[in-house]
Formats: sequence, C-alpha cells, structure tokens
Amino acid sequence: MKPLKTLLFFSLLASFAQAQQSTWIWYPGDFEINLANKMQNRRTERGSYLLPFWKMDAHYVVMNFHKTVTLSQAEEVDFFVEGEIANVQVSGKNLGNPHKFIVPAGKQTIAIKVYSQATVPAIFIKGKTIVSDGSWKVTNEDKEWIDETGKASDGSGTVWMQAGSWDLNNPLVKPSAFKLPTTLHKPTDLKREGNTLFADFGKETFGFLTLRGVKGSGKINIYYGESKEEALSITDTETTDLVEINTNTPKDTTMLLSKAFRFVNIVPSGNVNIENVEMQYEYAEVVDKGSFRCNDDLINRIYDVSKYTMHLNTREFFIDGIKRDRWVWSGDAYQSYLMNYYLFFDSPTVTRTLLALRGKDPVTAHLNTIMDYTFYWFLGIYDYYLYTGDKAFIQQLYPRMQSLMEFCLARRNKNGLMQGLAGDWVFIDWADGLSKKGEVSFEQLLLCRSLETMAICADLANDKTSSTNYLRLHKDLKIKLFNWYWNNQKQALVHSRVDGKQTDNVTRYANMFGIFFNYFNEAQKQGVKKNVLLNDKIQKITTPYMRFYELEALCAMGEQPYVLNEMKQYWGDMLKLGATSFWEEYNPQKSGAEHYAMYGRKFGKSLCHAWGASPIYLLGKYYLGVKPTSAGYQTYEVEPTLGGLEWMEGEVPTPHGNVTMKMSKTNLTLKTPTNGKGTLVLKSKNKPTVSNATVTDKGNGRYELTLNPNSEYNVSF
Amino acid sequence: MKPLKTLLFFSLLASFAQAQQSTWIWYPGDFEINLANKMQNRRTERGSYLLPFWKMDAHYVVMNFHKTVTLSQAEEVDFFVEGEIANVQVSGKNLGNPHKFIVPAGKQTIAIKVYSQATVPAIFIKGKTIVSDGSWKVTNEDKEWIDETGKASDGSGTVWMQAGSWDLNNPLVKPSAFKLPTTLHKPTDLKREGNTLFADFGKETFGFLTLRGVKGSGKINIYYGESKEEALSITDTETTDLVEINTNTPKDTTMLLSKAFRFVNIVPSGNVNIENVEMQYEYAEVVDKGSFRCNDDLINRIYDVSKYTMHLNTREFFIDGIKRDRWVWSGDAYQSYLMNYYLFFDSPTVTRTLLALRGKDPVTAHLNTIMDYTFYWFLGIYDYYLYTGDKAFIQQLYPRMQSLMEFCLARRNKNGLMQGLAGDWVFIDWADGLSKKGEVSFEQLLLCRSLETMAICADLANDKTSSTNYLRLHKDLKIKLFNWYWNNQKQALVHSRVDGKQTDNVTRYANMFGIFFNYFNEAQKQGVKKNVLLNDKIQKITTPYMRFYELEALCAMGEQPYVLNEMKQYWGDMLKLGATSFWEEYNPQKSGAEHYAMYGRKFGKSLCHAWGASPIYLLGKYYLGVKPTSAGYQTYEVEPTLGGLEWMEGEVPTPHGNVTMKMSKTNLTLKTPTNGKGTLVLKSKNKPTVSNATVTDKGNGRYELTLNPNSEYNVSF
Repeated sequence: MKPLKTLLFFSLLASFAQAQQSTWIWYPGDFEINLANKMQNRRTERGSYLLPFWKMDAHYVVMNFHKTVTLSQAEEVDFFVEGEIANVQVSGKNLGNPHKFIVPAGKQTIAIKVYSQATVPAIFIKGKTIVSDGSWKVTNEDKEWIDETGKASDGSGTVWMQAGSWDLNNPLVKPSAFKLPTTLHKPTDLKREGNTLFADFGKETFGFLTLRGVKGSGKINIYYGESKEEALSITDTETTDLVEINTNTPKDTTMLLSKAFRFVNIVPSGNVNIENVEMQYEYAEVVDKGSFRCNDDLINRIYDVSKYTMHLNTREFFIDGIKRDRWVWSGDAYQSYLMNYYLFFDSPTVTRTLLALRGKDPVTAHLNTIMDYTFYWFLGIYDYYLYTGDKAFIQQLYPRMQSLMEFCLARRNKNGLMQGLAGDWVFIDWADGLSKKGEVSFEQLLLCRSLETMAICADLANDKTSSTNYLRLHKDLKIKLFNWYWNNQKQALVHSRVDGKQTDNVTRYANMFGIFFNYFNEAQKQGVKKNVLLNDKIQKITTPYMRFYELEALCAMGEQPYVLNEMKQYWGDMLKLGATSFWEEYNPQKSGAEHYAMYGRKFGKSLCHAWGASPIYLLGKYYLGVKPTSAGYQTYEVEPTLGGLEWMEGEVPTPHGNVTMKMSKTNLTLKTPTNGKGTLVLKSKNKPTVSNATVTDKGNGRYELTLNPNSEYNVSF
Repeated sequence: MKPLKTLLFFSLLASFAQAQQSTWIWYPGDFEINLANKMQNRRTERGSYLLPFWKMDAHYVVMNFHKTVTLSQAEEVDFFVEGEIANVQVSGKNLGNPHKFIVPAGKQTIAIKVYSQATVPAIFIKGKTIVSDGSWKVTNEDKEWIDETGKASDGSGTVWMQAGSWDLNNPLVKPSAFKLPTTLHKPTDLKREGNTLFADFGKETFGFLTLRGVKGSGKINIYYGESKEEALSITDTETTDLVEINTNTPKDTTMLLSKAFRFVNIVPSGNVNIENVEMQYEYAEVVDKGSFRCNDDLINRIYDVSKYTMHLNTREFFIDGIKRDRWVWSGDAYQSYLMNYYLFFDSPTVTRTLLALRGKDPVTAHLNTIMDYTFYWFLGIYDYYLYTGDKAFIQQLYPRMQSLMEFCLARRNKNGLMQGLAGDWVFIDWADGLSKKGEVSFEQLLLCRSLETMAICADLANDKTSSTNYLRLHKDLKIKLFNWYWNNQKQALVHSRVDGKQTDNVTRYANMFGIFFNYFNEAQKQGVKKNVLLNDKIQKITTPYMRFYELEALCAMGEQPYVLNEMKQYWGDMLKLGATSFWEEYNPQKSGAEHYAMYGRKFGKSLCHAWGASPIYLLGKYYLGVKPTSAGYQTYEVEPTLGGLEWMEGEVPTPHGNVTMKMSKTNLTLKTPTNGKGTLVLKSKNKPTVSNATVTDKGNGRYELTLNPNSEYNVSF
C-alpha cells in the first residue's frame, strides 16, 4: 500500500500546484485571430490606413465553457467574464451572471455560456481548487458528427476543444485590453531649427512618439524616417503623423499609433512650440536564451544586430518588418520561428502566429493569398513539433490543418501537381523575370514536405487512416518530383514544367530546399552543390529571405567557411552602410540613398526586416551545431563547426534548458540540458579525448559521443 | 434613330430615379446575422439569460466595397462609415477616411475598405448620381477559384457579391443602432394592494415595461404573465425583472429588456412607491395588405386574433413565440413566410430570416440543429421565389444553398437516405411516442422537395450542371420514397424503415405533405385521405404547428367545409378560453390553468405562438383561393371556395398589387393586380356568366376563365 499512497500524495500535490494558476481562457485561436486583426489593420501609409488584402476571420460569438470537477467540499469561486451576456450553470442549475458562485461538493459540471459580439468570449475563474485554464473544454456549439478522425466529442455530436489561453493571468485586465508594454526612450540627438525639431534615436526603434510641452495654435507635421533621408524628404516619407494643437498651457501628446523609425522630423506651423521629444518604446516580453560570441568582432556585431532586428519584429506576432507591412506573412514568419528556436525559444509567439495565420474555416484562399505561404505554414508546424514536442497544440490545431490540406489537394491539376489558379499568388521570391508559369518544382517540393507534416500530425491526433493516406500522397509526389523535374544532364531539379514538359530553366529554390529536406541522394547533392549552389551562372539571390535558405543549404553540406565569408560580406556591408537593424533587401550594386528605394518608391524598403536576422539561426544551428533529432529535443545532435573561426561560445535553448558550449581549435567544453539524449559529432584528424564518455570512431575523421542530461564535458582534439 | 434615343432617354431617367436613394450597404447577410445574434441572445428566464444551443456566426471584419462609375463631370459625395478603420480609394488614389470626397469625371472605380470588429462594416454614400445601394459589389477578400458554378468574379479569383441592404436610409443612424420602433400603451386595468400593483393590458402584448414616479428605497420584483395565473404565481412565473431603487425624488424607469405579457404583477419591498405603470409597445413596421371578412363572426374573430398573433411574432425576424423562445426557428419561420404572403407580403422580413437562419460556412450542423428544419429552409426559398419572383436574392443566396445541400447529401446513409447522426435532432413534431428511429419517411420527403428547390435555384444562378444533378437526385429519391415507403395495403406512406425494412406504423406527416407537394397520383391521394387524414385511428395531431399542414392537405383536397368546422372548434375553443393571441398548443382535454403548462413547467407554454396564426394562410390560399402558379405571380390561380360560408370578401397581395374579391353563393366580384395572368377556377352547377371574359367548361362542373391584369370581373353562377 505504501507506494500507492505516496503516488496519490504526489499526484494530489501536483494537481494542487497546477490548480493555483487561473488564466483567461477562450476558444483556441479566437484571441489570436482578433489580436492579429487589430494589429494588421493598424498599418498606415502617409496617414491613410492600408488594410490587408486577404480574408480576415472573427471569433465565435457564442461560447460554451465546460469543466467537470469532483469536490470533497463546496467551493466558492470568483467569476470574471468578457462578453455582453453570460450565464453560469452548475450541474444544470441556472445561476445567471454572478460575481461569485458556489460549486457544491461531489461531481459537478460547470457550464458557462458567453455571448460577445465585439470581443472574444472569455472567462476567468478562481477558487481554491477550481481555476480556469487549458484543462477546460470549449465549444462554439459545433455539432459535427463523429467520424474516423476521432474528433473530441462527448458522444452527442458536440465538438469539444481544449480551451485556449496564454499568460493573461490578471482577472481585472480583460483579454481585449491586451497591449504590449512600453518604456520611455529619449533621442540621442535633438536638433532645432526655428521651431522645427529633428530627433535621432541613435538606432532603429519602434513605438509611440511623445511631444512634451506643446504650446500654441497650429499643426504639427511629423515625418518618420528609418533613414535620415527619409525623415527629411517630406514628400516621400512613408509614414507620417499630423497633430492639431490649440493651447496656451504646455501639454504632452503621445501619438495614437506606433511607428518604426530612427529619425523624426517634426515640423510645426503657426506659433506652435515643442519643448522636447521622447518616445514610448514598445516591445514584446521575450527573453534571450540563446547566445553567440566568437573571436571575430564583425560576426559578433552581425549577431547583435540580427538579435535586435529579431526583437523589433517579434511583437504580438512574428511580423515581416516594423515600418511596413507590419503584417503576419507566413513565409516571413516561418523564418522567424526558426530563428526563435535559437534565441528566445518562445513557444507562445510561434503558436499565436500559426493560429493567426490559419484563421478559420472555410478555407477559400491560400494564406496571405500565396501558395508557397500555405506550405510554409505546414513546415512551421513540422519544426514547431520537432523543437518543442508540444503534442497538445498539434492535436488542437489538427482539424484546421486537415481542412487547409484538403483545400490544397482539391486544387491540384490533372497531373496531381500544384499550379497557380485565379486568385493564387505564386510568389517564391522577389527576383527579376522569375517564371511562375505552369507547374513550378518549388511548389511541389513544399507540398511534398507539407504532406509529410500532415502524416506526422495525423498520427499525433490518432487519425491513423489519414496518416497512412498523407504518407502515400507524400511518397507519390516525391516520385513525381524526381521523375518529372530531375534533369540528369543538368544534375539539378529544373524550375518548372509547362504543358507537361520540363523547362530548360534551373533556379536555386527547389534545389537548395531539397538539400536540407534531405530529399537528394549523395550524388545528387554533390551535383546540386556544384551545378546550382556554387554556380554563378544560375540566377543569383538578392533577398535575405532566400539567402537564408541558400546559406542553410551550404551549411548543411559543410560549407561553413564559405558561408562565414558570405555573412561577413552581405551583412557586414549593411553594417558598413550604417545599418542598425538588417534590411529587407541589400544590393551591393547600389549606393547612397538608392539603398532605401524599393517597389518603385524612394523609401519603400524596410530597413528592419525579420528575414534579415538569419545569422542567429545559421550560427546556432550550423556553427554551434545544435539541433533536435526527435520531437522536443528528446534526442538531439551537437555538431560544432568553427568554420574558419578561432573560437566560439554560446548557448542554444531546448525545452529542458540550454546546451552551453565553448569551442576552440583544440578544445570543447559543453554542458547539457536537464533532459534529452544528445550525440556530439566532431570532425577531427585525431580521436578526441574526454574523461566522462566513450568516443566512437565513425570513420572519415568523424567521431561521436553520447551526451547525458545535466552533464558537463571537456573534449580535447 | 428615334426609338433608340427614346430608349436611351428612358433608361437615363430610370437610372437617375434609381440613383436618388442612398442606403446603408454591407456584405449580404452580415447585418442580418448580427441582428439575429443580438435578438436571440436577449432571451431570459427568471432573470437569467438563456442562449441558443446552436452555432452563431459573425460578420466579416474586413470588407471591400466597389463601384465603377462613369461621370460626365466631377462629383462630390458625402461619405459615412460604420467601422473602426476605413480607407477610400478612387481609381487607385488613397484618400484616407474623409467625410466628403470628389470623384473625378470619366470612368472611375471607387474602392472602400472597412475594418470593423464589433459591428458590421457598412458604408453610406450620397452624391448627385453616386449613391450606395444594392448595385455595389462587395468582397470579404474571398479569393475562390472560378469554377463551373459561375461565381461572380472579376477574373482575379476574387469573389464579388452584390451588396446587401434594407431600408436603413438615414446616414446619421448607423446600422448597429437599428431598433424596432415603440409606442406608449397604458394598461386597461390597474389594481393596487398596498404598494403592490397588478396591471392588465387588456390583451397579449410585447415591449418594455415603464414604472412612472418610482420613489423610496428597496427592490421591485416584477412578474410578467401571459395569463393572470402566471403573473400571480411568483414561484413559477417564466419571466421576471428586478429593479433596485434608492431615490427621494420620483423617477421613471423603463426596463432594459422587452417582455411578452398581458398581466404584470409588480411587488415592491421596503418603502418603495410607484405612481403608475405603462409600457413601450415594440412592433415591426409591417403593413396589412391582405384581409378577410365573411358572414361568420367567429371566423372573423379567429382571423383577427391570428393577424394580431402574426404581428406580435413578426419582429426583426419571424420568431416562434414572444415569451419564449424568441428565437428564429426554421420550422416555425417557414409557416410565418406562408402566412406573410397572405397578410403583409413583406419580403425583407422573409429574406432577413432566411439569411439569419442560414448563417455562414462552414456548415457543421443542421439549422437549429434540427434535420427537418434544414429542409424547411430550402422549402422557404422555393415558396419565396414562387410568391415574389425575386431572382436576385436567390442568386445571392445560391452559394450558401449549395454548401448546405452538400452538407445534407454528405450525411446520407448507405441507402442514400437521411437518418439521424450524432448531433442531429430529428424533430418532426411534439407528439407522444413518435419514433425517430431509422430512416423516417418524412425526412426523405422534405429532402426530395429540397432537391427540387436546388434544381430550380441552380438554374436561376446559371449553374446548369448542378441543376441537372439536383434534378436527378430528386427523381432518384422520389422513386425510392415510393418503392420503399408506400404500402399498398395501408394505402399510405409508412412512417419509417428500420434496418432496411418498412415499419408497421403510419403517421400523418409524410402523407399530408405528399398531398400538397402533389407527389401522389389521384388514387393514392384518395387512399391517403380516407386511410390517414380522415382516419381517427391514426395518431392525432395536437400542435397548431402540424395542424397547419393537416388542414392545408385537407383544403388541397377540397375539404374546406370540414376544415372550416375544425378551425371554428380548435381556434374557436381557444377564444372561448380567453385567448387574445393563439397558443403554442391547445388540448381540449385540459381545463383551467392546466392549459398554460408545457415542458413540465406550470407556465411553460407560449400563449402567443406564430404557428397558431395559420387561419390567415388557410383562408387566403384555400377560401379566397389565390396562389401563384409561376414565379412572382406572373401567372396565378384564383379558386374561391366558400366552404360552408354564406359570403366572404378579402384581399390577397401580389408583387403587382392585390387580388380583391367578394363572393356570395351566386356572385363573385373580382379585381386583378396590375400585372400577371390569372386563371379563375369556379366549381358550379351551371355555367357562370361574366360580361368581359370567356368561360371555359372543364367538365365535372369546373369552369375556368382567364383574368387580365388591372381588370374587374363580375361573375354570376
């Protein structure tokens, strides 16, 4: 009896500990979708709002929250609700909409209905043991019949979902009042000329401009600039503000909308006078867990500016750029997810972004209207599960994964391939003359990986039939991909098929993804490397967006020294040009203010774009060399590669703490997280030595040793 | 050249006349769905809100309004918007969110985007020629690919819909502020006992109670009663209010929520004193176009009380009953549509109700969760088109008809029949021991008719492929219906099949619908009439809901004298019991306050239920005998039948004005509407005589004559 008692005691303790934290709960995705609507509709261009051109969804307006509890004694709970109308029932008894209510002893079902048109229906409950949290069930009164996909159901046909939540733990702040925090920043330089002010905040920043001590009568035109030129341009400044003022006593005024800028040009008219300029810097509360340092100072600066770029673009969601579009783009977000795993390891920002991007059924268009962006969404889930092992989220999301995949599969052409239909944007990359005609290989490759993802997730959702089906579709498509696109002579996947025939064109896209998807055999890999990746005749990539994948592919093939050099040139050049955050695009051919132009607009380019921060990912994954090999870092690999550096040190976060290391040309010290089984891979001329592990010789100068949790290793080689 | 010029002149005049009226516009259905959410979530039971148990949808939060105009000169327009964020573009030029803007001369495209989370995105535009109306196109940035269903599209894959509107023509009152009008009513009797008041408003009514001159400190408990007993019961009163008061100066207070009542029992506590009691009667602005009068005063009173019952239940939508549920139930609404065609002929209330009931995609449950109620929705569209000929609405609704039908067809069992799945409510009727097991004939019959409707509407939407397909499905199912359910021995459709075998049970439902759907041959009809309709051994119908169809079936077979008698008994008895509106159910076996009980609750029964008003329909369609025989009364039939009356007179509305008649046993005077070709059918021993038409003898005492528009006939027989 003794062990059982102990077990019982601990499980009681555990449930008590768990029961402590009450949080606002809602239908999964509803808070996220509404927050994304708010954020994405805040974009302005010279005072006019610019709204996204894709479908935006809304929350469910009537929500049913459910929880069955078994109490040894009656319990009084505090009840908070966001919504217009609410009704609490305890085991069938109608209690209206009380501030507190009593749940009697015994087995009781709490059922709460909330109607809320304007905001997401949400509740917060706090009792001694009863708390609102992710263990509650919710339904929008969805009555789907039970089929083989094993949808959560109580047998009545009602579809129950696990409640959604985040960390909104204050009952007095309703979910709709959520805002990112701000902190006061002052300009590093403030110039006056008459009553005109020109503020420099020292580096790219984001937030709400504050004018202190404003007095007089007239207008204040405000021109924001990521560059000095943009703020001074006036006619071509992308974002502006206009304040009208009429006061004799000095007043402070803070702008209603946040802006991205380093420079602000403040031009009053009339007799308006402004005492001072400040800003409320707005930021997401994410914590740096990863780090990187090395002997090369330029790389260190690139890492730091990448990190700052990533911070600025990590907000309510992962966005593309802070000046514009400030929207959640699936392709851009996908890269942020990957960088996140090597910097913040902040899962809520990933799941919020995935939920916001997906929206709701019915699916009537690709994500952001872009075919590739739909597939990146699936790929993002693949990685999320691999890095975090968060099965519960996958299960919650699975029905929406299914319907999105059904949408894709229904759009295949007669050859079973994806081809742009009316309303589809086949994007791939910003590149001159890039053909989107016919059946583009890159899109098939992404669908192929997406189907792999579906097979894995169907398994996690206990939908075995679908899992088998997705795997079959994946395999069929992979065969087609190589049969129809692989060109033996060119030793590459060609760009597309038009009218059922291979085109002559070879581009980097499918080929580089094929590398790190591990879809090629060794000979194909080498062929692709030589004939595509390192072949200057193949159209070059100019966006950091695709540079990300290009450099990843090269790293995956052991070209770290080459990539280090590329990084120093491409990102280093931006630093030389005064970048304080990394840009949407960098073209070494251009000079001066030419760099700021894009989309036919003088200052159209974003100078702080998430996809510019990829060194975070490359340095963490391919230099420190840490990556999960099974879900949630249950197993992982560490293959540190100096790639031309003298030494490096850093940390890579996992769900169980950091992998910490310092490496020189002869020595490696390494600390492992509290959980997970690692494999250290070293390439060395001599067999490395280590006191507390066995080193296995894998041949060709490759050595491996097993890393135990919570351990420290000191390896010499 | 002349005729062309004239034509041009008239078409200019027409477009100018049309251009005068600006109205608020929105995405079709969005205003209606939101209004239904508001209305249906207002139901209370003893102070607690009671929310519907089916899925409720929301409006699209980002809307794109489009109109291309060609102007001979520039035009300034006033712009009003409901929404948080708006942006106006004229031919690509960004104008922000102005109160007025100028549309230059020439061909211009006005594109307006609106984001609105809390309310339906809506705009109102008024210029000299440019006005917001149903000619605008809208999209929720839906990017569906173009398929054979011929979805409205500009070729980009964007799905454009015709804007929705109603008669909200005041730019200063935003659509979200819409409320039904109210007018002051005073009680016919007010009794005091201490500070308790008991008000009698003389008849069933609906609105907001007002207490005048309330003074003192304490609570006022208010008990509403459709019957005196209910208001006095206190413990079992269905609807209540509670007012807390603390004032030394007399104040007026009007309740926030409307209630249904005739009696109000007002019980103050403490030293609270109330000077007077009134109410704000809330009503829909619908106009009586139909009428009926005859020599029988009881029938006249039945007609009048039916009319009042119908008025009370015709609100923002057609609802079931005013005390409860105050919800939009598809089965109940279906009968209201039919009654409406003989009383108000108010199309907007029909279309609002159809839109609200349907909600949005995806379909995950039957309407109101009830299988039969889904089918009544299709039937309602069939009738709507037949009576009004409103093709534009059908085209607008067609995509949602398709997806709902897809939902139904996907739920057929292996025999291709509808059978209740988890989450489905197979309702049919409130009747003791009614089996819902297996494949119920009634549900197949309704699906069969729904498929007929789909075929017609697919044609109207130019979706020929689907039309053919629906017609085939309809025919197949009709064959199955007779092969599998018709029992030659019983001369009736049996109630159901269980495990692939006919059950022994015969009920009235499928048989009576088969009559007025005209699915039987003449022999079958007579068999059904004798063995089912007029057979007392077949389980009797006790709800006015199904009495509606039973009496209709009998009328359709010429049993007007029998039905007249039934009406006088069933509805006459309710009047004898003091009914001032007709009830949800009437059972002659009960007595006294027993009549008010239902659902196991003392006062659970609704004493003002829309389905109680069916005499309106029966008298209009089967006694005055007017009905359309093709869409929008382009052709129609008038077959007046006294059915035991000495004389009758009345009016039946059509889209082109009323059919007006007065009939005695020897004479008929009849005025026709301004459009449509009618056929007058008379049964007479002798050939009727009429001065201005040719009477055709159809044999068996049946005579016909053609009715021209805008004509008057005086027929003797």
